[in-house]
Amino acid sequence: MPNIRIVLVEPSHPGNIGSAARALKTMGLSELVLVRPKRFPDPQADWRAAGALDIVERIQVFDSIEDAVAQSVVVAATSARVRHIPWPSMTSTQFAQHIYNNFESDQLASIIFGREDSGLTNEELNLANLQVYIPSNPEYGSLNLAMAVQVVAYDIFLSTQQTNNCNPPEWDKPLATAEERYAFYEHLYSVLRRVGFSDPNEPREAEVRLRRMFGRIPLDHTEVQIMRGALTHIEKSIQQDQGVDTASSEVYPEVKSD
Amino acid sequence: MPNIRIVLVEPSHPGNIGSAARALKTMGLSELVLVRPKRFPDPQADWRAAGALDIVERIQVFDSIEDAVAQSVVVAATSARVRHIPWPSMTSTQFAQHIYNNFESDQLASIIFGREDSGLTNEELNLANLQVYIPSNPEYGSLNLAMAVQVVAYDIFLSTQQTNNCNPPEWDKPLATAEERYAFYEHLYSVLRRVGFSDPNEPREAEVRLRRMFGRIPLDHTEVQIMRGALTHIEKSIQQDQGVDTASSEVYPEVKSD
Repeated sequence: MPNIRIVLVEPSHPGNIGSAARALKTMGLSELVLVRPKRFPDPQADWRAAGALDIVERIQVFDSIEDAVAQSVVVAATSARVRHIPWPSMTSTQFAQHIYNNFESDQLASIIFGREDSGLTNEELNLANLQVYIPSNPEYGSLNLAMAVQVVAYDIFLSTQQTNNCNPPEWDKPLATAEERYAFYEHLYSVLRRVGFSDPNEPREAEVRLRRMFGRIPLDHTEVQIMRGALTHIEKSIQQDQGVDTASSEVYPEVKSD
Repeated sequence: MPNIRIVLVEPSHPGNIGSAARALKTMGLSELVLVRPKRFPDPQADWRAAGALDIVERIQVFDSIEDAVAQSVVVAATSARVRHIPWPSMTSTQFAQHIYNNFESDQLASIIFGREDSGLTNEELNLANLQVYIPSNPEYGSLNLAMAVQVVAYDIFLSTQQTNNCNPPEWDKPLATAEERYAFYEHLYSVLRRVGFSDPNEPREAEVRLRRMFGRIPLDHTEVQIMRGALTHIEKSIQQDQGVDTASSEVYPEVKSD
């Protein structure tokens, strides 16, 4: 099982922060971080945490989701929203089994929870590799924020109690972090706009679809390097022809023949 | 699945009553009853119920557990306590499957939850057919009352959803065929060689790694089209600069904005 980071985005009520901390601790989790909380620290958070005050005291606060999840090899966003471009989506139970089967204890998995009233925006959902939802009453599926954290944490705890889970597959390279991924997407978009495939003033569905596509697999570090190396070569080809050299000065190590 | 009655014994905080009502409703349950509540009705219960006020308004209050569960064909008591005389005991998940498999919709199953601070006494546990516990952190297993209701209700809801667990996720586009994939790889390699990233006489490991990478994604038809459209734009950018037009004449349909 990877390390689990629970990310609350702009929580309004400090009580929910404390309740979430308690929910984490009951399920053996400990890493709670906040993005732009309305009120924190706050005595209500401490009070509702009960015996999980240690979790509250270790909470880190970030200015952006990107920063909060930067070191994660997999990022999940909790949402019940069905999107125009459907994102890879799994239940809380399936997600718990997925990360238990596919990631290691030295890797970080982040799970993003949206605002109490409005959840996450599409742009925020795009930061995730996959969406996670909690099966619920189709006529009233609105779980309280801390309740949703409790359910997801419960499923994660249950997945560690199963004896028949398979081992994660061996892999030859370390997985890419979310930070590396986001930098790659920006590089890719920049090239696509450069060659006239995308217009920055009217971003096309294609960019979102590409992000979704690459987000469906756990890219490894070398793969991201290769893709960025290829993009840099493309930039140089265009710029050489134009007699301008503004190519990225980053160096991508050569990869030997197979 | 039988009808489910959630019984809270002497709850201290009306907020927990409202939260429990909301938890029930999110999981399609509706029958919440109280035994000797400290404060009820109470505005805090209403407030915390959010969209589940209808559940709160239908709450029945009883003087004894015996009265509250009288019509039940099966009574479960939630407790993590290990008894001197061991009681039939199952996890929340096992219990949900048990009642789903063994009882009918015209029967009533009651689940008793104890006090926030002290749970249920042995005498109260004796009123139940079986004990139900929520697997949790052995060092801190103290779930908030309403959280425990949420988890048990969630397991009950999941047990009713089991038949559709194995369906593949819905997807908006047909998957790409191997033929489309291979044509995409060739197109990609051709561009990478063109920009000097790959040498056709000394194919690099990078090409194999890219193939492995894309092979891990169940690419859909539109994604392959987008990638090939992007490659064609890159080719045109290079060729325009060189004053030669040998770009692929294939046409990739435009994709509309999100």
